[in-house]
Amino acid sequence: MNRPLLNELLERFQRGELSQDELVEQLARMPFREFPDARVDTHRALWQGLPEVVLGEGKTAEQIVRIARTLQAEGGNVLVTRVQPEVAAQVRGAIPALVHHPEARVLTLRQEPVAPTGHGTIAVVTAGTADIPVAEEAAVTAELYGNKLERLYDVGVAGVHRLLASLDVLRSARVLIVVAGMEGALPSVVGGLVERPVVAVPTSVGYGASFQGIAALLGMLNSCSPNVTVVNIDNGFGAGFVASLINRE
Amino acid sequence: MNRPLLNELLERFQRGELSQDELVEQLARMPFREFPDARVDTHRALWQGLPEVVLGEGKTAEQIVRIARTLQAEGGNVLVTRVQPEVAAQVRGAIPALVHHPEARVLTLRQEPVAPTGHGTIAVVTAGTADIPVAEEAAVTAELYGNKLERLYDVGVAGVHRLLASLDVLRSARVLIVVAGMEGALPSVVGGLVERPVVAVPTSVGYGASFQGIAALLGMLNSCSPNVTVVNIDNGFGAGFVASLINRE
Amino acid sequence: MNRPLLNELLERFQRGELSQDELVEQLARMPFREFPDARVDTHRALWQGLPEVVLGEGKTAEQIVRIARTLQAEGGNVLVTRVQPEVAAQVRGAIPALVHHPEARVLTLRQEPVAPTGHGTIAVVTAGTADIPVAEEAAVTAELYGNKLERLYDVGVAGVHRLLASLDVLRSARVLIVVAGMEGALPSVVGGLVERPVVAVPTSVGYGASFQGIAALLGMLNSCSPNVTVVNIDNGFGAGFVASLINRE
Amino acid sequence: MNRPLLNELLERFQRGELSQDELVEQLARMPFREFPDARVDTHRALWQGLPEVVLGEGKTAEQIVRIARTLQAEGGNVLVTRVQPEVAAQVRGAIPALVHHPEARVLTLRQEPVAPTGHGTIAVVTAGTADIPVAEEAAVTAELYGNKLERLYDVGVAGVHRLLASLDVLRSARVLIVVAGMEGALPSVVGGLVERPVVAVPTSVGYGASFQGIAALLGMLNSCSPNVTVVNIDNGFGAGFVASLINRE
Amino acid sequence: MNRPLLNELLERFQRGELSQDELVEQLARMPFREFPDARVDTHRALWQGLPEVVLGEGKTAEQIVRIARTLQAEGGNVLVTRVQPEVAAQVRGAIPALVHHPEARVLTLRQEPVAPTGHGTIAVVTAGTADIPVAEEAAVTAELYGNKLERLYDVGVAGVHRLLASLDVLRSARVLIVVAGMEGALPSVVGGLVERPVVAVPTSVGYGASFQGIAALLGMLNSCSPNVTVVNIDNGFGAGFVASLINRE
Amino acid sequence: MNRPLLNELLERFQRGELSQDELVEQLARMPFREFPDARVDTHRALWQGLPEVVLGEGKTAEQIVRIARTLQAEGGNVLVTRVQPEVAAQVRGAIPALVHHPEARVLTLRQEPVAPTGHGTIAVVTAGTADIPVAEEAAVTAELYGNKLERLYDVGVAGVHRLLASLDVLRSARVLIVVAGMEGALPSVVGGLVERPVVAVPTSVGYGASFQGIAALLGMLNSCSPNVTVVNIDNGFGAGFVASLINRE
Amino acid sequence: MNRPLLNELLERFQRGELSQDELVEQLARMPFREFPDARVDTHRALWQGLPEVVLGEGKTAEQIVRIARTLQAEGGNVLVTRVQPEVAAQVRGAIPALVHHPEARVLTLRQEPVAPTGHGTIAVVTAGTADIPVAEEAAVTAELYGNKLERLYDVGVAGVHRLLASLDVLRSARVLIVVAGMEGALPSVVGGLVERPVVAVPTSVGYGASFQGIAALLGMLNSCSPNVTVVNIDNGFGAGFVASLINRE
Amino acid sequence: MNRPLLNELLERFQRGELSQDELVEQLARMPFREFPDARVDTHRALWQGLPEVVLGEGKTAEQIVRIARTLQAEGGNVLVTRVQPEVAAQVRGAIPALVHHPEARVLTLRQEPVAPTGHGTIAVVTAGTADIPVAEEAAVTAELYGNKLERLYDVGVAGVHRLLASLDVLRSARVLIVVAGMEGALPSVVGGLVERPVVAVPTSVGYGASFQGIAALLGMLNSCSPNVTVVNIDNGFGAGFVASLINRE
Repeated sequence: MNRPLLNELLERFQRGELSQDELVEQLARMPFREFPDARVDTHRALWQGLPEVVLGEGKTAEQIVRIARTLQAEGGNVLVTRVQPEVAAQVRGAIPALVHHPEARVLTLRQEPVAPTGHGTIAVVTAGTADIPVAEEAAVTAELYGNKLERLYDVGVAGVHRLLASLDVLRSARVLIVVAGMEGALPSVVGGLVERPVVAVPTSVGYGASFQGIAALLGMLNSCSPNVTVVNIDNGFGAGFVASLINRE
Repeated sequence: MNRPLLNELLERFQRGELSQDELVEQLARMPFREFPDARVDTHRALWQGLPEVVLGEGKTAEQIVRIARTLQAEGGNVLVTRVQPEVAAQVRGAIPALVHHPEARVLTLRQEPVAPTGHGTIAVVTAGTADIPVAEEAAVTAELYGNKLERLYDVGVAGVHRLLASLDVLRSARVLIVVAGMEGALPSVVGGLVERPVVAVPTSVGYGASFQGIAALLGMLNSCSPNVTVVNIDNGFGAGFVASLINRE
Repeated sequence: MNRPLLNELLERFQRGELSQDELVEQLARMPFREFPDARVDTHRALWQGLPEVVLGEGKTAEQIVRIARTLQAEGGNVLVTRVQPEVAAQVRGAIPALVHHPEARVLTLRQEPVAPTGHGTIAVVTAGTADIPVAEEAAVTAELYGNKLERLYDVGVAGVHRLLASLDVLRSARVLIVVAGMEGALPSVVGGLVERPVVAVPTSVGYGASFQGIAALLGMLNSCSPNVTVVNIDNGFGAGFVASLINRE
Repeated sequence: MNRPLLNELLERFQRGELSQDELVEQLARMPFREFPDARVDTHRALWQGLPEVVLGEGKTAEQIVRIARTLQAEGGNVLVTRVQPEVAAQVRGAIPALVHHPEARVLTLRQEPVAPTGHGTIAVVTAGTADIPVAEEAAVTAELYGNKLERLYDVGVAGVHRLLASLDVLRSARVLIVVAGMEGALPSVVGGLVERPVVAVPTSVGYGASFQGIAALLGMLNSCSPNVTVVNIDNGFGAGFVASLINRE
Repeated sequence: MNRPLLNELLERFQRGELSQDELVEQLARMPFREFPDARVDTHRALWQGLPEVVLGEGKTAEQIVRIARTLQAEGGNVLVTRVQPEVAAQVRGAIPALVHHPEARVLTLRQEPVAPTGHGTIAVVTAGTADIPVAEEAAVTAELYGNKLERLYDVGVAGVHRLLASLDVLRSARVLIVVAGMEGALPSVVGGLVERPVVAVPTSVGYGASFQGIAALLGMLNSCSPNVTVVNIDNGFGAGFVASLINRE
Repeated sequence: MNRPLLNELLERFQRGELSQDELVEQLARMPFREFPDARVDTHRALWQGLPEVVLGEGKTAEQIVRIARTLQAEGGNVLVTRVQPEVAAQVRGAIPALVHHPEARVLTLRQEPVAPTGHGTIAVVTAGTADIPVAEEAAVTAELYGNKLERLYDVGVAGVHRLLASLDVLRSARVLIVVAGMEGALPSVVGGLVERPVVAVPTSVGYGASFQGIAALLGMLNSCSPNVTVVNIDNGFGAGFVASLINRE
Repeated sequence: MNRPLLNELLERFQRGELSQDELVEQLARMPFREFPDARVDTHRALWQGLPEVVLGEGKTAEQIVRIARTLQAEGGNVLVTRVQPEVAAQVRGAIPALVHHPEARVLTLRQEPVAPTGHGTIAVVTAGTADIPVAEEAAVTAELYGNKLERLYDVGVAGVHRLLASLDVLRSARVLIVVAGMEGALPSVVGGLVERPVVAVPTSVGYGASFQGIAALLGMLNSCSPNVTVVNIDNGFGAGFVASLINRE
Repeated sequence: MNRPLLNELLERFQRGELSQDELVEQLARMPFREFPDARVDTHRALWQGLPEVVLGEGKTAEQIVRIARTLQAEGGNVLVTRVQPEVAAQVRGAIPALVHHPEARVLTLRQEPVAPTGHGTIAVVTAGTADIPVAEEAAVTAELYGNKLERLYDVGVAGVHRLLASLDVLRSARVLIVVAGMEGALPSVVGGLVERPVVAVPTSVGYGASFQGIAALLGMLNSCSPNVTVVNIDNGFGAGFVASLINRE
């Protein structure tokens, strides 16, 4: 929201340079930053003090470089998600300050210190090893937003003892992100073990009747643990982001 | 299969009363019992020495009585599934020898002693209380087929400690029937705890995105425990029947 | 969790009355409360100090009375969800201390003072008037868990000015519950206006291609606002519960 | 419709060269233009005075050249949709008069002046940058049909202020084309701001539970704004075409 | 939009009674009419000079009477949709000025003369007789919005000659509403015969694989006639409303 | 098709009373019978010499009587499908000449002798007893169209010997109608046994994952026997009708 | 069916070399041709005197050559379906007697004269040009089975006059194959114009909400013309085969 | 399960080095083997004495080699599933002891003798040749678990005589695995012929309305033979594994 422009409009109105009718229409318009030839995609959080987020999927290395340079010039932190390895390499060739997190498929730029905004720990839990990329997207996101993380991977429900072996990690978290494909049962089991909010992320891991994550999604929506909420299939960024908001004071 | 008729055909052929061509066509035909005005439905098991099964759903009390009397006269055991309470009362008014199992919604007739054919125990496990009718249909079926049963109800995954509290019951079974609605996660968890076949039964319990049992069904098909197989939604009879076959020598 | 029994087991082990092997198996078992003839359903939160929750759907007035009396005797608070008006009347006839919230279709019993556990406000927002019952289920739940509520109903996206008229209500909340049927677009718009977690509840309101809430559910899962998470269709209780957990310190 | 042939048939009938019976059957037949080895696809508008439309998808450059030359020889305007860049280059190598609109993936041939048939403005609005190709297909179509266009891109509902900033553009249009993927909420919000018909185009932009545009499609069909109608997923041409018809006097 | 209140706010700001900050927040808020105990549902068009629309479905006769009286007092025209016969009778008992259109299942109140706003004719076409209620909802809506109507019912594609028999009716319309269940093919055929926009309404008429209108909906979305747009299943009101907007100058 | 009117038009044209232009437009129009207040539904076959068909579903006894009387007066044969027992009783009270086939849920009126148009036999086969009503609708339809029938009921694939027992019935048919719910496998098996066209009718018999006939429908569409074609779920009339056409010389 | 082996078994039984019990079990077994290392796929028709059919999809050129040589040696006619161009070229390099029909994507081998088995004409009709490959697969199949063909392509419902122009072709056919993608409306329109069986083939032509042919499939299953039956999406072979059976005396 | 660690904890508790509270929490934790940089995937069976199973899909040759070496060092048997040919070649280059089963797409390592644990035969049956890879995955799995196998391939229901020809093979098995794509009817037919459990495996073989195995899956779930249970689409390993468990004493 462009408050200077807004104030200018109101001052012009107060000075009589703008009629009430003109003001009524104009007030509803609030300009937003525009890039020379590519706008930042809608998959982002433009809130003050938070990192800018750029969806890398479907963008060329050149486009990402141009956007990232604009954001770099403004001095804030930046998160670029869903970047293929070769694109990441090209972008880093142009902007070496960017850090590549290959498992998470993201690039990050830290120009400002990341103040610890979360007052607890976020636990990121996966059912299998194939769920790790989505979990890492969530984890790197949450770290860039100033949270302390605990990772607990490959503790699926077919071996419930493995899960119980980490009960204290689960119970010491302020909020949990649970990532699972196939039947998507892990959030329900974790949800029954903790008294904290669980953000469930279905993944497209599986085959046949998993239907690219639908089985896991439905399993999570029908969870018998009432502390479970769900985000879109493979949406690690969203899970990391909303967990950060929950963990903020 | 009508072996007497078959033998008769072959004898007529051997005596030259039937040409080879005639026999070839006739041999493929094997008559089957017919009732005066209603045939036994296809939802049954006609194997020798096993109880006859009649699907009660969609049949009037009068039709069930007529079929049951025919089967009663033959001296074997009978199982009538999916019988509404009022229909059950009318049928029992006509044939008092039938026993009503109201929670399982079935009628049984025991005329022959049920020999213990299963050489182990069948454990029937449910996630919630609302899954009990389907579980009881499975349990009564398995009992009529000569199996020893263990029931373990309301041990859903949101309280995994409750499930672990019954670990020895689970582990002492030869085969397990696990009945669950909502996310259908219980068979995966149970499957991870035992080294035995698990027959999973999704139920239509739930609301919204449970889609009358589809969520549970998909969850079970995508189970990460490889000892889980699945039957149709609410198919308690099928689960009890196939578990009996597995438990037979 | 039955800690006395657990301690007893450990003491018996320490006294040598229980072998290590016996203890290993036994420790995994933790008894849980059982009612004479009906167990509490899985749709609940058994955590210490929180109200007991009973799913009223599919239970007779008699069953609810029996469960509620057991819980009443224990002295805690109780929430019964999804109670039809006639059932509610019968239950209150038997236990007058229960309060009926007809729009929310719930019964509550307050025996202990509800300490304000939430340190912010929960805003409950609906798109239309038909979404109000689900919203009220969420709101009454959150109030019983000790939260301060703000209700903002009938502010759907087709009249976005109405929504903006309440911007300060939206922005002063610690967490928001947004309830919508039809296209389910409201959580995205609200999510874009606030920097807080938004719990989206799709409702089965609509007709034709709304498919009993699927359109709204998909809309919410695909929200372009990354602070939106989703619960099951019509799951007001779950939304109220998880929002309470987020709002707890 | 081939009126000369029709008239010839009637004259032959009047001269007695054709019996009534023969005429009755023949009259129903109206020949249509045929190309040597490829017919124009059904995805088109053959109405008099309007440009011919050729669906480029699934056709080789050679086939497109042959069809385009036939149409070029007839002197009218031509629109070729869904042309891949390399095919477009080859076709333009053969027929340089064709103009390539790379973002819209279309080729146009203007041989006749395009008379301004629309008496108002068509606004083309997108939720994100990834929706722009479909929007451009709609826009170039509408321009070739003689309409004045206003483009308003990347004004998704997660930042509703950005949309309101362009309220006068929206309100001055005679008809609006609103293009959106993901949750498809933008047409509802735009529809609530204007008193004009809104043609909504779902796009296959998104991932996971967007199901290649189904979520957006359902969202639009369930719009709470009654001035919204919907065309097929990614159908930019159809939206541009129908908006042109609405905008004609 | 409440312009008096808006002006009052601006005057208070100009008089210094309101700070800029206060005004910025307040300006975004525009009050809207509220009824004592029931708000008008979102399925409506609140635009100036147009009839108020109330969705009757899910409302009691008492609720409809209360809303209708408020609107009656304001002097405008009113449309109540989806009213069951018994509810309609009760409402008319209380407000005799309301006219009941039983086939369309709507109530109308005409207090102001309906100026002819549409400058052409709207043709309403159905495939079968079972589609007529939805068509009538569209037709009565369009009439109340000041349009001239032509009805053409039961001209489905299985008898395409019947459709051609009315070609001049079809071709003289400015916009066409085509209502069809089953395979939903009629809009495509009509769309190929006219050079005008066709608003297609799928109906839930049919059985089996019609899936309550999904087959018709998909058929219409995939229409090979590019002048076809689609509204929700059974959404007669929406079709009548948007056709009115198209038909306005 | 109204040939007298057509001839009249042509004669007026020949006499110069009609211009060519007028004739061209008029010729496309062919009037069709209209009933005073209800048109015959589209689910019918209006071909010359064939019985008239009226879809009874959704019509009152009074409406059916009025239509049937009109058709009775014309002297042809009539078929009314999907008639509930009470409606059938009322209609027969008014028109005793109608014959009720309760299992098929149809009424027939034979005023003309039914000439044997089919030159072979049509076999109607069902998998279970619950499929019989749909099969009887097909059978009675085919009989009224002049075909010789063979019925073979309750020969589902779980007892393939029962099916083989009737191999000569199957192989002597000119065309087969195979009706099955549940997995819909019977048409494939029958199709493999005969060298004739098989018309498969899925029924909505079953529960759970049968999805009201979708499982059977998909099974039939994917038949590995290439002589199988499919009609809509429960569409007995359609199967009987198309089998009659195949069986006609 | 191997009759020599069957006769041999019966003779051994008659000679007493085989017991009745042995014969009963053996009789059910009828050997079938086996290829050295690849069996003929299930997508075929093994009936006497008809061409052998081999599904080319998923087979290497080498596998097809080996199977085709075996069949060639037996002297009958052969049809290989779904052969990619490069595979076809390789196969023809090895067996030059095979004829390639590139539009139909099939190979045929005619060793025996094809006797005209069909006593009428089969009309093959398509809605668009993109439907032609599937139509040609049907047409070449029907020709190899001894039928006379009429092709009528690109006569979709958006230009119904084009269809009517060929009314005599349609009406002179004994059976019609109608191939259409998108909304799949053509079979209904054609079905309303002829009194013959119509075999409808949905194609996967289209995009977006056509869902790879589902929209067309549903449209055809819900056809309001009762003479329409349906085969699987893109199943040209099946349509040609079943039309041949219908056309046989 | 790490019994040494468990015993150590209990001993420390007994020695008083661990409080009861500490023990209660610690006991729930049981460590599990960890590989240096890749954990074994969840698609496995970790039970004592059984082969380790590694899901090859989605793993590089390098990752598989590292895991396989760890397991090789432990001396047990190993099964790697879903290995592409090139990956298999690379892995065998590094660990020549691995055996490649190309049709089954698996690698096996036999270090211990495979004791015959199954006390009967497992029959593996397929409908077509295209189902063989899934069937072989099941067969090789079952063999590695110590079972005796019978393979019966390409005996689909369109030629039911071929199936009956192998009746004695079917009837002599203790458990049957039936693999089928397309309509998935084979398990029902086989299930009706044997008195043993049938594990049905739908395959993604087919096209059009087979929907990558959904049609087959639904057909199997709705089987009219009650001895049929189902595993996920293409899940050969699961079928082989559960059949082994059933076949164990």
